[in-house]
Amino acid sequence: MNDKKIELLQTYLSLYIDHTAVLADMDKETSQYVVLDVRNAPAQVKQDQIKGAVAMPAKDLAAHLDDLDKSKTYVVYDWTAGTTLGKAALLTLLSAGFDAYELASALEGWKGMHLPIETI
Amino acid sequence: MNDKKIELLQTYLSLYIDHTAVLADMDKETSQYVVLDVRNAPAQVKQDQIKGAVAMPAKDLAAHLDDLDKSKTYVVYDWTAGTTLGKAALLTLLSAGFDAYELASALEGWKGMHLPIETI
Amino acid sequence: MNDKKIELLQTYLSLYIDHTAVLADMDKETSQYVVLDVRNAPAQVKQDQIKGAVAMPAKDLAAHLDDLDKSKTYVVYDWTAGTTLGKAALLTLLSAGFDAYELASALEGWKGMHLPIETI
Repeated sequence: MNDKKIELLQTYLSLYIDHTAVLADMDKETSQYVVLDVRNAPAQVKQDQIKGAVAMPAKDLAAHLDDLDKSKTYVVYDWTAGTTLGKAALLTLLSAGFDAYELASALEGWKGMHLPIETI
Repeated sequence: MNDKKIELLQTYLSLYIDHTAVLADMDKETSQYVVLDVRNAPAQVKQDQIKGAVAMPAKDLAAHLDDLDKSKTYVVYDWTAGTTLGKAALLTLLSAGFDAYELASALEGWKGMHLPIETI
Repeated sequence: MNDKKIELLQTYLSLYIDHTAVLADMDKETSQYVVLDVRNAPAQVKQDQIKGAVAMPAKDLAAHLDDLDKSKTYVVYDWTAGTTLGKAALLTLLSAGFDAYELASALEGWKGMHLPIETI
């Protein structure tokens, strides 16, 4: 049973990227990461987002894959950790051959740690 | 590794149903979905629930499977996404041969989107 | 597909331990469980913790495995359910041969149920 647990944890955790990696990349002249805000809510509900994020609602993602750049690494986030929207966006991106991760702890965690956000 | 990620995401996401599917079904004369509130807390703590939901605490579910209808599709929800209670209820239902899903984003998401609730 | 769902749910749920098991163990003269608070935040941000928990930030865990006791069962928790920190700590512990679980519903759920905490 422990082997199954370990394999599940390894695969599950490999879906995620930590805020520290995203933050470090923000300071570089040429960013490797493109942060996608995949929340489906309208802008007035969202109010703010991770600094530099690109709004790409999960429901519109499949129709906009041609606008994305295969040389970049995409980082998707939803309101909170544990929801399915980020995972759905991630599945779309990985299935289309993109390098992509979900942001661990999501927007809630990012704001809880007082990391850079911007109003929208 | 990407194959493993994609397979995990596909299976994980197949456990969930979106609020839009549940909402659309609520408006039909004959509902296909039965929404089960599987929170274990007493009613005074719960205060409100998704409109039309049936209270079926996860701890009591296994003893009440005979009261359920195999022709229906069951949708379970807990307080928030990412907890284990909904998954435990879902495992009980699927193992007993029921068609069942967990509500993506849970009660927290449902209320955050101002979808129909009722006091209990 | 149902077989895959059931297998995923079984493995996923086997990673978790319920608050009732942890609470019952707290009342025993000799506790089997050691609760590890794996939050990485500094103490002033954490403010309080589960009563009797040992602070062991996830980032420091791998370097402190020799301080742990293989005869005990470790229970890790993060701020909320659905984050990856608890799972990362759990993977470290299971891979090193420890008996370990993540606390279902995390600190948020524990406090929401008004279970014993202590200031730090």
